[in-house]
Amino acid sequence: MSFIEKLVTASRRNRSLVCVGLDPDPAKIPEDITVKHGRDSVIEFNRRVIEATRDLVCAYKPNSAFYERLGPRGLEILQATRDLVPDHIPAILDGKRGDIGSTSAAYAESAFEVMDFDAVTVNPYMGRDAVAPYLEFEDRGVLVLVRTSNASAREFQDLPVGGRPLYELVAEKVRQWAGGNENVGAVVGATAPAELKTVRAILGDAAPILVPGVGEQGGTAADAAKNGANSAGERAIINSSRGIIYAGGGTRDGVRATAEKLRDEINLVRR
Amino acid sequence: MSFIEKLVTASRRNRSLVCVGLDPDPAKIPEDITVKHGRDSVIEFNRRVIEATRDLVCAYKPNSAFYERLGPRGLEILQATRDLVPDHIPAILDGKRGDIGSTSAAYAESAFEVMDFDAVTVNPYMGRDAVAPYLEFEDRGVLVLVRTSNASAREFQDLPVGGRPLYELVAEKVRQWAGGNENVGAVVGATAPAELKTVRAILGDAAPILVPGVGEQGGTAADAAKNGANSAGERAIINSSRGIIYAGGGTRDGVRATAEKLRDEINLVRR
Repeated sequence: MSFIEKLVTASRRNRSLVCVGLDPDPAKIPEDITVKHGRDSVIEFNRRVIEATRDLVCAYKPNSAFYERLGPRGLEILQATRDLVPDHIPAILDGKRGDIGSTSAAYAESAFEVMDFDAVTVNPYMGRDAVAPYLEFEDRGVLVLVRTSNASAREFQDLPVGGRPLYELVAEKVRQWAGGNENVGAVVGATAPAELKTVRAILGDAAPILVPGVGEQGGTAADAAKNGANSAGERAIINSSRGIIYAGGGTRDGVRATAEKLRDEINLVRR
Repeated sequence: MSFIEKLVTASRRNRSLVCVGLDPDPAKIPEDITVKHGRDSVIEFNRRVIEATRDLVCAYKPNSAFYERLGPRGLEILQATRDLVPDHIPAILDGKRGDIGSTSAAYAESAFEVMDFDAVTVNPYMGRDAVAPYLEFEDRGVLVLVRTSNASAREFQDLPVGGRPLYELVAEKVRQWAGGNENVGAVVGATAPAELKTVRAILGDAAPILVPGVGEQGGTAADAAKNGANSAGERAIINSSRGIIYAGGGTRDGVRATAEKLRDEINLVRR
C-alpha cells in the first residue's frame, strides 16, 4: 500500500490527524521502564507510547537524531522502533536529509529499502537533485521542508524573491517535482499558520502536509488543522513529540489521555 | 587541539589541501579485501585508503549516507572508520544535518561527543537555530552548505534576493554566526569557481572552506585551489571521494598515486 493510501486509511479509521513523534530522551524515560528493561529501555518506552496511542493516530514519526545520539546501537533501536509501528499505520522517518547523486540514493535506500519506512522528510536547499532519488520510490512519501516551525526559519525561508517569500517558491517546486504523485508533499510548522494556508493552496488538496510544532513549540492544534488540512479536512499530519510522549511522566494513561485530547481538539475544527 | 589548528598543522606537514572522502560502496570494494575480510570489508577498505594516503592529505571525510545504508551495523562501521583516522589529521563527518532545538543538539552530541569527529557539515535552510547547538562546541569545525556542487544547486541558492544571489546572503550569515571563531566555515562546490571566489571574499582569510566536487563531479582542482584557498594558499579542503578511493581498482598503489597527483596539481597553483 502506498504511503498516502495508508495515511488516509489510518486517519479515517482512527478519525485522527495526530502524528506522534517518537523522540526518546533516555534521561526522561520513566523509572519503571529503565529499572526493568535496562539497555532496551528506549525500545520499551517507544512500545508503550505506540500501544497507548495506536487507535488515536494517523502516523508515527521517529526523528533520527535521537537514535544517532545513542551511539552504534542507535540504528538497531531505530529499526526496532520502526518495526513496532503497526502495519496499517504509516511510519515517517524524520531525517531532513539533503544530499546529491549517489549519496542521496544511499539515503533513500537506507530509509525505504533497509529500514522500510513509508515516508521521509527531506531538505530542499540543494534543489531537485537532493530529492530525485527519493522520488524514484513512487509509492513512498517524500515530505519536503518548506516553512519550518522554528524562530530563525524566517532568516532564509521568508527572504523576498521577486516580491514573494522563498518558501512559496519552494512549495511551487515541490508541486512540480511531485508531478501529480500524491505521495509527495511538504513540511510546514504549526507556528506559521498563514504560511501553512498559503502552502496548502499552492499544493492543492492531494498533497500530504506534515505540520510539526504543536504543543511544545507553541503552535495551536486548531490553527494547524484549519490551515493545514485539505478541503475534505484530511491529509494534514499534525505532529506532537515531547508534548505527548512525556505526558503524565510518560505513563501509559498520561500519554493516551494527551494524544486523545489533541485528536479531539483537532477534530472540533476539521471541516 | 581545535579543528582549525589540526587542519592547518596537517595541511602544512603533508603540504596538502586534499581531503579524501571515505564513501565506500560494498559493490566496488576490491575482491582481495572482500574474500579475506567478509563482513569487515568496509572497515578494511577504509583502512587501506587511509594507510595509502595519510602522508598526502589534510583531512578525511566520511559521508554518513554510505554508512546508514549498511543497516544497523552502519554506525559501528562509521565509528570504527573515524577511529582509523590518525590523531593529527582532522576527521569531518559529512552529514549535512539541519534541524532545531533539542534535535539539533542531539545531532551535535552524536557527532562531537559520541563519535568525536573534529568537524561536521550542516544545512542552513532552517536558519541559525539549526547551527547554534554545533557552535557551542567552540573547538569543533562547523561547515555550512553555502553553494553546492550539483547541477540543481542553482534552483534556490542562486535566486536573486535584493539583487544578490541567496548563497551570498547565506555566506554573510555564516560569517556572522562564526563571530570570529575560525572553526566555522562553508561548503562550496568546485563546480562553481566564481561563486567559490565570492564566498572566500565574504568569509575572509580565517575561515575553512570545504570544496567537494573535484574529479567525478567535473570541477578542476586548479580552480578549486585558486578560488578556495586564502591569501596564504591555505584553509581550503579540497575533497575527492570516488575519484581517489576506487582509483586503479581500489588498489593501494592506485589510491596513493591518484591522491598524490591531485595534491601536486593543487600545489602547482597555490599561492
